[in-house]
Amino acid sequence: MNKLQQQIDFIQEIEKLKTVTRKNLTLDNKRPENSAEHSWHVTIMAVLLCEYSNKEINTLKVLKMLLVHDLVEIDCGDTWLYDEKANESKNAKELNCADRIFNLLPENQRIEYKELWLEFEKRDTNEAQFAASIDAMQPLLNHRITGGDLIKSSKISVNTVIGKKKHIADGSNVLWKYSQDVIADCTDKGIFVA
Amino acid sequence: MNKLQQQIDFIQEIEKLKTVTRKNLTLDNKRPENSAEHSWHVTIMAVLLCEYSNKEINTLKVLKMLLVHDLVEIDCGDTWLYDEKANESKNAKELNCADRIFNLLPENQRIEYKELWLEFEKRDTNEAQFAASIDAMQPLLNHRITGGDLIKSSKISVNTVIGKKKHIADGSNVLWKYSQDVIADCTDKGIFVA
Repeated sequence: MNKLQQQIDFIQEIEKLKTVTRKNLTLDNKRPENSAEHSWHVTIMAVLLCEYSNKEINTLKVLKMLLVHDLVEIDCGDTWLYDEKANESKNAKELNCADRIFNLLPENQRIEYKELWLEFEKRDTNEAQFAASIDAMQPLLNHRITGGDLIKSSKISVNTVIGKKKHIADGSNVLWKYSQDVIADCTDKGIFVA
Repeated sequence: MNKLQQQIDFIQEIEKLKTVTRKNLTLDNKRPENSAEHSWHVTIMAVLLCEYSNKEINTLKVLKMLLVHDLVEIDCGDTWLYDEKANESKNAKELNCADRIFNLLPENQRIEYKELWLEFEKRDTNEAQFAASIDAMQPLLNHRITGGDLIKSSKISVNTVIGKKKHIADGSNVLWKYSQDVIADCTDKGIFVA
C-alpha cells in the first residue's frame, strides 16, 4: 500500500474518536463531550497558554502530543480519572490499542506518534508535563461552566480532586494556582464535596 | 482584568463551537459532526499530511490557523459550501463574529489570531492554501466513509463539487489527485450526481 493511503486509513480510523464520550458536558447541557472535541479544546488551550509553562517547551511537539493523546480510547473508551478500579487495568489495554492504531501509519510517523503518546503517558519531559497540565485543567473549566451534572452524584471530595490534579504544578505553577481557584468554585457549586 | 483571565474567558467562550453542527456525519451515523471535532480532525490531518504541501510551510502556523478557522461559526453557524444564497452574506457576518471573539484575547494574541483567521479566509499565503486544502478534503473523506446521508438529497452535481474543491490543488497537487478519486467514489455511491 502506498504511504498516502496508509495515512488516509489512519485519518479514517480516528473518525471513531468522535463517538467516545467523557464525563464533561457540552454547554447546552444536552450531551456528554466526546474525546475528539476535547482533543481540539486542549490543543487550542496549549497554544494559547504555552507562555505559562514552567520550563522551555517545543510548542509544536506539545500540540502533536495533545492531538493524539486520547486516540487509544477508540478501543478502550475514556477511563474516568476518579474510577480507581478501571484505572488499575487501563495501561495494558491502552498500550494494545496504541499498537493497533499507530501501526496504521507509515513507519516514520508510526514511530514518532507512538513515542509521543508514550512520552505523554510517562510525563517525564517538559512537553509531556505541560501537555498533562492542560489536559487536567480542561475538565475543571468545563465542570465549572456547565455545572458538572455528570459527576455530581459521585460526591468526589475536594481532597481527592487536589490529589489527582496537583501534577498541574509540574507543568505550570501559574495554571495550578488558577486551577485551585476553579476547584474552589466547583466546590462552592456542589460539584465536589468539601 | 488580568491576561490569564482574558485567555480563560476566550477558552470558555469557544466551548460553544461544540454545539455548531455541520453536514458531515459521525461514523455511527447517529448525529451530525460538530465544528469542534471537525477542527480537531483537520488539525491532525494537516500535521500528518504536511509533506504533500506544494510549497514550503510553517507547520505550527498551519495548525494554529486550523484550530481557530471555524470559531466564527459560534455566532454565524456553519455555512454549507453548496448553499449559494447563504454564502453571499457569509463574509460580513463572519467578520463581525471574528471581531467579537478574538477581542476576548489579550492584545498580542487578539492581533495574531485575527490575522491568522483573515489569512485563512484570503488563501493567498502558502500556509493558508495548504490549510484550505485540508479543510476542503476532510468532508469528502467523511462523506465517502459515512455514506453522506445529510447531503444526498441535495443532488449536488460532480462538476459543482469539482468547481468548489479544485483549490485543493493550490495547496497540494498530491492531495487534489487523491481527492478526485474520493469524489469519484462518492459519485459511484450516489452521494454526488454524475
